[in-house]
Amino acid sequence: MKLSDIAKILECEFNSADIEITAMNSLKDATKSELSFVSNSKYIKDIESSKAAAIIITESLVKYLPKGCVALVVENSYWSMATLSKYFAPPIEDDTLPSAKIGEGSKISPKAEIANGATIGNNCTILAHVYVGSNAVIGDNTTLYPSVTIYRDCKVGSDCMIHAGTTVGSDGFGFASNKLGEHNKIYHNGNVEIGDDVEIGANTAIDRAVFGSTRIKQGSRLDNLIHIAHNCEIGEYSVLAGQTGLAGSSKLGRSTVFGAQSGVAGHLEIAPFNTFAARTGVTKSIKESGKIFAGFPFMEHRAWLKIQGKLARLIK
Amino acid sequence: MKLSDIAKILECEFNSADIEITAMNSLKDATKSELSFVSNSKYIKDIESSKAAAIIITESLVKYLPKGCVALVVENSYWSMATLSKYFAPPIEDDTLPSAKIGEGSKISPKAEIANGATIGNNCTILAHVYVGSNAVIGDNTTLYPSVTIYRDCKVGSDCMIHAGTTVGSDGFGFASNKLGEHNKIYHNGNVEIGDDVEIGANTAIDRAVFGSTRIKQGSRLDNLIHIAHNCEIGEYSVLAGQTGLAGSSKLGRSTVFGAQSGVAGHLEIAPFNTFAARTGVTKSIKESGKIFAGFPFMEHRAWLKIQGKLARLIK
Amino acid sequence: MKLSDIAKILECEFNSADIEITAMNSLKDATKSELSFVSNSKYIKDIESSKAAAIIITESLVKYLPKGCVALVVENSYWSMATLSKYFAPPIEDDTLPSAKIGEGSKISPKAEIANGATIGNNCTILAHVYVGSNAVIGDNTTLYPSVTIYRDCKVGSDCMIHAGTTVGSDGFGFASNKLGEHNKIYHNGNVEIGDDVEIGANTAIDRAVFGSTRIKQGSRLDNLIHIAHNCEIGEYSVLAGQTGLAGSSKLGRSTVFGAQSGVAGHLEIAPFNTFAARTGVTKSIKESGKIFAGFPFMEHRAWLKIQGKLARLIK
Repeated sequence: MKLSDIAKILECEFNSADIEITAMNSLKDATKSELSFVSNSKYIKDIESSKAAAIIITESLVKYLPKGCVALVVENSYWSMATLSKYFAPPIEDDTLPSAKIGEGSKISPKAEIANGATIGNNCTILAHVYVGSNAVIGDNTTLYPSVTIYRDCKVGSDCMIHAGTTVGSDGFGFASNKLGEHNKIYHNGNVEIGDDVEIGANTAIDRAVFGSTRIKQGSRLDNLIHIAHNCEIGEYSVLAGQTGLAGSSKLGRSTVFGAQSGVAGHLEIAPFNTFAARTGVTKSIKESGKIFAGFPFMEHRAWLKIQGKLARLIK
Repeated sequence: MKLSDIAKILECEFNSADIEITAMNSLKDATKSELSFVSNSKYIKDIESSKAAAIIITESLVKYLPKGCVALVVENSYWSMATLSKYFAPPIEDDTLPSAKIGEGSKISPKAEIANGATIGNNCTILAHVYVGSNAVIGDNTTLYPSVTIYRDCKVGSDCMIHAGTTVGSDGFGFASNKLGEHNKIYHNGNVEIGDDVEIGANTAIDRAVFGSTRIKQGSRLDNLIHIAHNCEIGEYSVLAGQTGLAGSSKLGRSTVFGAQSGVAGHLEIAPFNTFAARTGVTKSIKESGKIFAGFPFMEHRAWLKIQGKLARLIK
Repeated sequence: MKLSDIAKILECEFNSADIEITAMNSLKDATKSELSFVSNSKYIKDIESSKAAAIIITESLVKYLPKGCVALVVENSYWSMATLSKYFAPPIEDDTLPSAKIGEGSKISPKAEIANGATIGNNCTILAHVYVGSNAVIGDNTTLYPSVTIYRDCKVGSDCMIHAGTTVGSDGFGFASNKLGEHNKIYHNGNVEIGDDVEIGANTAIDRAVFGSTRIKQGSRLDNLIHIAHNCEIGEYSVLAGQTGLAGSSKLGRSTVFGAQSGVAGHLEIAPFNTFAARTGVTKSIKESGKIFAGFPFMEHRAWLKIQGKLARLIK
C-alpha cells in the first residue's frame, strides 16, 4: 500500500517522497518498509530509535521522530491506527492460495475444513468439524479434537494435542474509542505460535497478536476454558489450570504454575518458576523466582494465610 | 392452542368461554390472546394491569385479576408455567419453512448449516461449521467465524463479527423445582437480538430470553468466554472483558465498562457510563453514572483501595 | 498387553510369571488382570488390600505389597504410570467397529459425525456439527445442539439436552512432572457418564476420568461455561450456575446448589443438600447438610455477611 494512499485514508497532510508500505508494526519491531504509530508520550524513546518508514503521530510528538522517518500527523493516533489496520488485514480465507499440503500418515476427517494455503504435518489426527485457516501450519503427530478452530497464519507445533472446542487465533480485544464512546476495531494481523509438546484443554480461547505473535511455548499445559489475550507469552513447561485468564501482552516465565480461576492483568512480566494458588489475581510484575503467591490483590501465600487467620478472628 | 386444552394439561378447573392462546408472555407484555403466570405476591400491581387473556395463578392471588382475565388456578404456578412452556416451544428446526435466503455477495461455506427459514444479509462471510437456525436473521457485512452457533429466531445486526465457538441463543438456565428437588425445564421461547456493529469474542455464550429478547445493543464489544444469561440487556457501546458473567435479567446502561472476570447478580439495573474494575461482583442496582467500582461485594474503587491498604497494614 | 512387555517399557526388572494385563486401574478398583500404581505412602492401606495383578511402585513401598502381587519397581512411579497410560489408550476413533446404531425416530443432521461403534437411542435430535465418538452411547429423546462433542466411550442418558459448544469427555488435566519441569501426559482412559434428565448449557467442558467415570447424575442442571475436571461426581438434581469450576475428583452430594463463578478444590466430598452463594471457593470437605456457604476461603453465609459488615466499618 502506498504511503500517499495511507495519508489520504487518514486525511492528513503528505509532502514526502512516496514509498510502498508492506505492513504495520510496533515502534520497536517496524522495519524500514513498515508503518508504526504512537499514542502515548511514554514511548518517546521507542520513537527515537524506531526504524519505521513512517509513524502515525500527534503534533506534540513529531519533534522526537528520527531523521528520515515520515510523520503522519493526526488528532487521535490510536483511532487512526485502528482505521488503517483494516486495510492491512489479509482476506479471512485466501482461495487463491494452493490447496493445503497434508503430510504422510495424517488422518483428516472429511468433515474438517482445511483452508487453502494451510500445511498439516505427518501423522496428525484432525477430527470432524475442525477448521484450519489459510497459511496455518500444524506440526507432526498433532491431534486436533472436534470443533477446534485454528485461524489463518497460526502455528501449532509437533506432538501437540488440542481438545474440543478450543479456539486459537481469534482477534484480540482491541479497539480505539472516541469521545462519544464509539469503538473502532483494531484488526489483529499478527498470529499465535504454539510450541512443540503443548496440550490445551477444551473450550479455551487464545487470541492472536496485534503485531507479532501470541506465544505458548514448548511443553506447556493449559486446561479448559482458559482465556489468553493478544500478545501474551506463556513460558516453557508452564501449567495453567481451568478458567484462568491473562489480559493482553503479559509474559509468564518458564515453569509458571497457576491454580484454577486465576487472573493476570495486562502488560506484566512474571519471572520464571513462580507458583500461584487458585484464584490469585496478579496486578504487578514479579522479578523474583521460586515463590508462591495467592489472593487478590496478590501477595505471598504466607501473608495471605495470615490475613485469612486474622479475618477469621475478627468475626469472633 | 385452546385455553381449554391448557387447563387440561395443568389439571385445573375451566368454565370460561374458550379462546385460542397464541403464546405465553410476562404479565407486563402479554396481549389479549396470550397467557401469563404469576408466582409471587410482589407482582400484584402487574396482575392488576395485565392485558393477558388468562393467568396461571395460585388461589390466594385470584382476587387481584382484572375483569375478563381468566384464572387458571394451580398449586405451584411456576411449575405449571414450566410444564406448559414445552407446548409453546417451536420445533428446533422447522423443515416446512422455505430454504434460507442468502443476500448478494455473501460467501457461505458449504460446511456451514443454514436452516430453513433463515435470512442472511449481503456481503456476509459465514465460515465452516457455523450453524444458523430457523428464522434467524443475520444483517449485512457480518462475519461468523467457525463453529459459531446462532439458534433459531435470533437476530444479529449488520457489520458484526462473532468469533469462533460462540453460542447465541441457547436456553437460559431456568427451571421450576418441587419439594423433592426435581427440576422442570422452562423452555425459553424468546430470542437474542444483537445490534449493528457488535463484536463478540471466542467461546462466549449468550442465552435467549424466556419471553421477549436478550439484547446486546449497537456498538458493544464482548470478549472471550463471557456468560450472558437470559433476558439481559447490554447498553450501546458497552465493553465487557474476558470471563465476565451476567446473571438473568440484568440491564446495563450505555457505555458500561467491565474489567475481566467480573460478575453481575440477577435482576439488577446499572445506570449508563459506569466502569467496573476486573473481578468486581455487582450485587445491587446502581443509579448514579460516571463512577468507578471494584471489589466483591462491590464498592467505589477508592473505598476498595483503602480497605486493601488497611488489610495490608493488618498483617504487619 | 503382557506384563513382561510393560516391564521392558518401564525399564524395570522382571522375574515373575508372565500374564496378560487388560487395563490400568486405581489400587482400589483394579482386578486381578489389571495393573495399578502407587506414588504416595499415604495409600499404604490401599496397597495392602489391592487385588491388582501388579503394581508400579517405588522400592520403599514394596514391603506392603499383598502376596502374589507383582512389583514393578521404578524411581518415579507417577511418571512411569503416565508413560504407560499411552499404551492402554484406545484409538481416538476405531474404524474397525461396526457403523453406529441409530434408534427409531431419531433425526441426525447429515453434518453431524457419528463415529463407528456409537449408539444413538430413539427420538433423539442431533444437530449439525455434533460429534459422537466411538462406543459412545446416547439415550432416548436426547437433544444435542450444534458443535456438541461427545468423546469416545462416554454415556449420555435419556431425556437430556446439551447446548451448543459443550464438550463431554476431553482428557483430564493430568500429567507427571520431572525435576526439569517437563511433563508426561496421563492418557485418561475412563469416561463420562451423564444420567437421565440432565440439561447442560453452552460451552461447558466436562473431562473424562483417568480410570472409572466422571459422573453427572440424574436430574442435574449445569449452566454455561462450567468446568468439571476428571473423576468428579455431581449428585442427583444438583444445580451449578454459570462459570463454576470443579477441580479433579471432587464429589457433590444430591441437590447441591452452586451460585455463579464458584469453585471447588480437588478431592473434596460435599454432603447433600448444601447451597453455595455465587463466587464461593470451597477448600475443604463438608459433612453437614442443609447449610448455606459463601466466600473464599468459604465459611457459613452468616459469618461471611458479618465479615463484610466489619470490613465496611473498617474504612469509615
